[in-house]
Amino acid sequence: MLKRLEKSIGYSFCDKGLLEQALTHRSSGSKNNERLEFLGDGILNFVIAAAIYKCKPKASEGEMSRLRAHLVCKETLAEVGRELDLGDCLRLGGGELKSGGFRRDSTIADCVEAIFGAIYLDDGFAASENVILGLFDSRLNDMPDLSDLKDPKTRLQEFLQSIGKPLPEYDIVDVSGKEHEQTFKVKCSTVANEEPTIGKASSRKAAEQDAALLMLKVLQK
Amino acid sequence: MLKRLEKSIGYSFCDKGLLEQALTHRSSGSKNNERLEFLGDGILNFVIAAAIYKCKPKASEGEMSRLRAHLVCKETLAEVGRELDLGDCLRLGGGELKSGGFRRDSTIADCVEAIFGAIYLDDGFAASENVILGLFDSRLNDMPDLSDLKDPKTRLQEFLQSIGKPLPEYDIVDVSGKEHEQTFKVKCSTVANEEPTIGKASSRKAAEQDAALLMLKVLQK
Repeated sequence: MLKRLEKSIGYSFCDKGLLEQALTHRSSGSKNNERLEFLGDGILNFVIAAAIYKCKPKASEGEMSRLRAHLVCKETLAEVGRELDLGDCLRLGGGELKSGGFRRDSTIADCVEAIFGAIYLDDGFAASENVILGLFDSRLNDMPDLSDLKDPKTRLQEFLQSIGKPLPEYDIVDVSGKEHEQTFKVKCSTVANEEPTIGKASSRKAAEQDAALLMLKVLQK
Repeated sequence: MLKRLEKSIGYSFCDKGLLEQALTHRSSGSKNNERLEFLGDGILNFVIAAAIYKCKPKASEGEMSRLRAHLVCKETLAEVGRELDLGDCLRLGGGELKSGGFRRDSTIADCVEAIFGAIYLDDGFAASENVILGLFDSRLNDMPDLSDLKDPKTRLQEFLQSIGKPLPEYDIVDVSGKEHEQTFKVKCSTVANEEPTIGKASSRKAAEQDAALLMLKVLQK
């Protein structure tokens, strides 16, 4: 099983114990992949940042950040992990195993990062960089358009500017629920539409984005 | 001037243009340090993460994250920049120059990161890593105690547990002001003290931390 995994990763460990640790979820014991994940997250973020820097010579700092957030998110990492059939190799404790932890996006994504960290410890920066660039090759060659990555508030603002209207306004209209379960309701108003939209989420910022997205949908209908 | 700076950094650029770009604030033209800063932020975060991983073999992922946040914050980077007399070398546009941009923490911190990015482009990972580890050497050898880095809410919780009291409660009592200038008021209540404390900040989370810090001060008096 580990041999097959090393083959799909394209890297053979000198210290197989590092690979085993990278595959071990915290539910399965104290020698688990959490520290390796911290290290792997760091190297992954930098390697992808450097790749974007080189591929997109005209992109601004903000655009590069958004591209990186898109490439290094949990969903993309879980995709990478599934391509490697990582779910079969995970070492989970009993509870996690029963609840299907080997299929969970976050568990797989964390394990992918831990593997990058383990390769760095096993053979240094260049080895880990090589593996990361190999696994992200198609995604780096097929990055989304920068305009698709803008958040709803930015897109709404640009849309309103393009039709010569003033900026929208956002106001909190309600905060309810206990701590850690609070719900924010935010109103988005613009002269371009008589009715405001109401966004709802667990933070003010997310509720604003939600309200902006609803307004965009109304205006672009 | 550039020669003296190279000497204090401990690195001599093959391509002096990269160093010049790293020193150029966006107020001074389009060939500025913003993209280099993105790259440098990535390499710095990873190099410090790897150094903490090695220095602190017992620290958890969360503890390593807090240590890194402490070492890679704007204030620490500005300190590093001042030790290099970076303020004298910055290239600022007229407005920034008048308003004292060369003394501003964020401007100096961004420039330090941009220099790390420029060294990476000039001579690769190992060269940039060397410079970073050199400049952070004393800080890595003298890291703060993990317990001092816990946030006020965590410290309050641990304090209450240590005296056998239940967890505190946080409630929003007021949200005022327009978007981007909103003020959240949060009440922190605990049976350990009759009077609640009120924290104030521009986000709910920060207001909770503020209220928790005030409560800690009251309880530990």
